[in-house]
Amino acid sequence: MKIIEKQPERTDLPLVVVPNIVGAMLEPFTSTLGLLHDVARVRIYTEPTLDDDTLVKRMEGAKGVVVIGFHVSDAMLNRVSDHVECFAFGGTGVASYINLIATRERGIRVCNVVHYGNGAVAEHTVALMMELARHVGRMDAAMHVGGWHGEDGVSLEDKTIGLVGFGGIGQQVARIARGFGMQVLVWDSHLDAQAAHDLEATPVADLGELFESSGVVSLHLPLLPETAGLITTEQLNRLQPGTLFINTARAEVIQPGALTSRLKLGDISAGLDVFDTEPLADDDPLRTMPNVVLTPHVAWRAEAAYTSLTKQLSQSLAAYFKGESFNIAN
Amino acid sequence: MKIIEKQPERTDLPLVVVPNIVGAMLEPFTSTLGLLHDVARVRIYTEPTLDDDTLVKRMEGAKGVVVIGFHVSDAMLNRVSDHVECFAFGGTGVASYINLIATRERGIRVCNVVHYGNGAVAEHTVALMMELARHVGRMDAAMHVGGWHGEDGVSLEDKTIGLVGFGGIGQQVARIARGFGMQVLVWDSHLDAQAAHDLEATPVADLGELFESSGVVSLHLPLLPETAGLITTEQLNRLQPGTLFINTARAEVIQPGALTSRLKLGDISAGLDVFDTEPLADDDPLRTMPNVVLTPHVAWRAEAAYTSLTKQLSQSLAAYFKGESFNIAN
Repeated sequence: MKIIEKQPERTDLPLVVVPNIVGAMLEPFTSTLGLLHDVARVRIYTEPTLDDDTLVKRMEGAKGVVVIGFHVSDAMLNRVSDHVECFAFGGTGVASYINLIATRERGIRVCNVVHYGNGAVAEHTVALMMELARHVGRMDAAMHVGGWHGEDGVSLEDKTIGLVGFGGIGQQVARIARGFGMQVLVWDSHLDAQAAHDLEATPVADLGELFESSGVVSLHLPLLPETAGLITTEQLNRLQPGTLFINTARAEVIQPGALTSRLKLGDISAGLDVFDTEPLADDDPLRTMPNVVLTPHVAWRAEAAYTSLTKQLSQSLAAYFKGESFNIAN
Repeated sequence: MKIIEKQPERTDLPLVVVPNIVGAMLEPFTSTLGLLHDVARVRIYTEPTLDDDTLVKRMEGAKGVVVIGFHVSDAMLNRVSDHVECFAFGGTGVASYINLIATRERGIRVCNVVHYGNGAVAEHTVALMMELARHVGRMDAAMHVGGWHGEDGVSLEDKTIGLVGFGGIGQQVARIARGFGMQVLVWDSHLDAQAAHDLEATPVADLGELFESSGVVSLHLPLLPETAGLITTEQLNRLQPGTLFINTARAEVIQPGALTSRLKLGDISAGLDVFDTEPLADDDPLRTMPNVVLTPHVAWRAEAAYTSLTKQLSQSLAAYFKGESFNIAN
């Protein structure tokens, strides 16, 4: 088993343990460890495990623990809370992975990471839009087999893109779309009017009107009680033939089944990275539709996201041991 | 045989004939015919032909002829030069399709179309870049079969793109790249310094230095005697591992065989729309390389390009019959 250690001889410093890591994060994470120099010694277990006993054993003696890819169950928390003082969680939805109330009651800090995937998700949105517009992947697959069969594309520079949700990701998509020369419409329940103005995005008060007026529609809403099922069949029916519809946000912001029904009409196309159930069932009708482009929830998975995420982990732990506040979640 | 006629009763007006047309241009072209209202009557043959006798027969009585997809041989010219006064050529490289000297000697005007594909080619460049960066097409093909296997992508916002050639297409790619937040380097033998300044692109005097400093390299050179073979093995060797190399310009601007050799090293990837011989041979080694994305010379084929091209055809003919100058090539 391979273990990477930084400053192991400095037993005067608190120990940070990474009991589990995914391969693609290892290099970005180790490159951020300068932030912990003279603050903590670090031990990284590079062989993945999801076994509770192994994870607890690896955390032995650690004051700081990086949580990637596993759940800290209440039982696990009981076994490590005599020595762990800070969990740094690397992912989205920390509350599903660590009991925030129980940790707070025991005085254990939990840190999360924020906005780490904005650029990656925005760029994947554009990648889906380009495949819908120009079919490069489809032609490439054919070219690798043989032959010479081109397809006409659609132009984007004279199109309007309607963005549903205008946080960090939506704003970055707007910035890229403006570079194309596209007109940008935006709907957000709490619109940042200054950002809309700065990015030359035109606010639209009615979601159905945005759907009707856009050649490309892309969703960038968080999943919240008030956004679940926000996109309805009635709104999807207002999409014009030829519209490119993109979802890299969450499937649950659309009424269950409404998008699949709309796509069955065949007059619009869609690029989807998120689904009601993941992994997507092998017999899901989306798998066989010619007018959809599918990716398996990878929009956030790009190197810049890993860089930002792992840097925030090191920053959070450094802040804790220096008595500062950073990314506190509980 | 289907013939479309506009104002056929207006025999007082000169006749414009379109003896051959490709399907995708028909609708864009007819939508521009308002430009010829009260200027010429128009007859469009919608059934394609490349037979000389048929083409000559269709041109009978025409003063204006739209040339799309066929060559006006010298023999054909001899047969129609008693009545044709203006050829409007819809494509690239008019000199390969119509004898410019012979037509000029006979007082026949030849018009070409310019810059019609700039936006389309720039957007296809970005589509190739996105497929190299995020593999949407490859994942989509897998998702349509089954399973749930994602791939990590690379981020673009913190990358540098080096543009070789900075005319209309290169400038539009720069505009889009700036929207992503990319740094832009540019090399051009006759650089438009003002355009570079306006688009925040940094001029680089040495091509090898541009290759060495860019995470993405894209070619936007015309093929001219002085650009043929301009890109050499030595320069390609200076590309850093991981570079995304894109060519939507012409294959001949690279030394024959140099790119294929460089790609065989496997440490860079490429998105290619143009090839030394087209159609690309079925046994060309590029077809089986895992690190290349191939499209069959389609970069210009998008709706905006057809719109611009067909509009220019009508503008050229209208200008001729009104005694004005527009897009004159001979």
